[in-house]
Amino acid sequence: MNEHTVKVFDNELGQLRGLVAQMGGLAEQAIEQAVAALVRGDLTAAARVVEGDRRIDVLEEEVEGLAVQLIALRAPMADDLREVLTGMKFANTLERVADHAKNIAKRVSEIDTSVRIEPMSVLPAMASVAGEMLHDVLDAFAARDVEAARRVCERDRAVDDLYNSIFRALVTFMMENPKSISQAAHLLFIAKNLERIGDQATNLAEMVHYAATGERMVERERAS
Amino acid sequence: MNEHTVKVFDNELGQLRGLVAQMGGLAEQAIEQAVAALVRGDLTAAARVVEGDRRIDVLEEEVEGLAVQLIALRAPMADDLREVLTGMKFANTLERVADHAKNIAKRVSEIDTSVRIEPMSVLPAMASVAGEMLHDVLDAFAARDVEAARRVCERDRAVDDLYNSIFRALVTFMMENPKSISQAAHLLFIAKNLERIGDQATNLAEMVHYAATGERMVERERAS
Repeated sequence: MNEHTVKVFDNELGQLRGLVAQMGGLAEQAIEQAVAALVRGDLTAAARVVEGDRRIDVLEEEVEGLAVQLIALRAPMADDLREVLTGMKFANTLERVADHAKNIAKRVSEIDTSVRIEPMSVLPAMASVAGEMLHDVLDAFAARDVEAARRVCERDRAVDDLYNSIFRALVTFMMENPKSISQAAHLLFIAKNLERIGDQATNLAEMVHYAATGERMVERERAS
Repeated sequence: MNEHTVKVFDNELGQLRGLVAQMGGLAEQAIEQAVAALVRGDLTAAARVVEGDRRIDVLEEEVEGLAVQLIALRAPMADDLREVLTGMKFANTLERVADHAKNIAKRVSEIDTSVRIEPMSVLPAMASVAGEMLHDVLDAFAARDVEAARRVCERDRAVDDLYNSIFRALVTFMMENPKSISQAAHLLFIAKNLERIGDQATNLAEMVHYAATGERMVERERAS
């Protein structure tokens, strides 16, 4: 590439990273708003999260379109190509994170907030750990900070532990409150959505590591 | 590209598609074997499914490596580039399908097959519809058959209906059998895994359509 082409490429790559950051911010908000809507039983806020997911889907398509264009027109080599492809995968995973937030929002109408379901109180805590993981991995992505990415992975265990404790608490609750079993079942799935967001933040952290170093993190088993 | 380069490229693209097909076959098997292990309460077979998932993860990494190499060395244009990138996304989704099969297998140890849980009988039917969708979308991918891909999408509704009926049946079962609530909760997640496999087969069908035509299917809401 000549100097001009390099500048154009850097510009376009910056644009791609900007779109990914925008998606990340929206996904983070969606998690927060979905769980807030759940706790308050706010159907209007829940509907807004579901509706807002379209915007994230559109952004993912834009990232993909821009990546294809970048590759086709600029034919980037090695490190640059890896960065473009990682941006695409990152966007793909963020879209899945946002889908989990949407799925949480969709279940809000199934929960009757006048019934006291004690284990539900753990969900906001779980959402805030998962949300912070996402927030920090987005910062790590923006700063290409491999160490910060590694620290995100370390927190996935906390989300898993919260998930396991809420699973047990909900099963106990169901045994004692057979009439609220259906609601508790929806809460089980909501907890699972949050647990998956933690897994995906971990996957994103691995992508930051890979984009920056060309090497995969090997110390941990892949989150699935 | 000159004639020789075109031949090499076609060869490598064939290799990429071959790896994807191999992943698809393994994912299909994993679903079948996981549900068979569940029904028989066969822990050894379940462990084999969990173990076998590593092979699929490795294949996905191979697909990705080959795709990056193809793009970097051959700088494919338009249609060819779209095909390479679709192969990568296809592999990524197949890895997720296989993860669902693995997650089903991991829950086998939680289910006591000596307890009769009537709604469980619907799971093999659900697995076979989802498995057939996957099988047919792999054929559609191999044959670049847009019409066959479209027919796969039409069957997703059947999987969703089975999921909704099993959800209700399990909630009723839990109310009547409080001692088996924990097991029934695991079965809820298994049903959800199968429902997600149907969604992902639908997403794969959309990729076949996109790779062949350059256009997205627009008639249906995106499965998430």
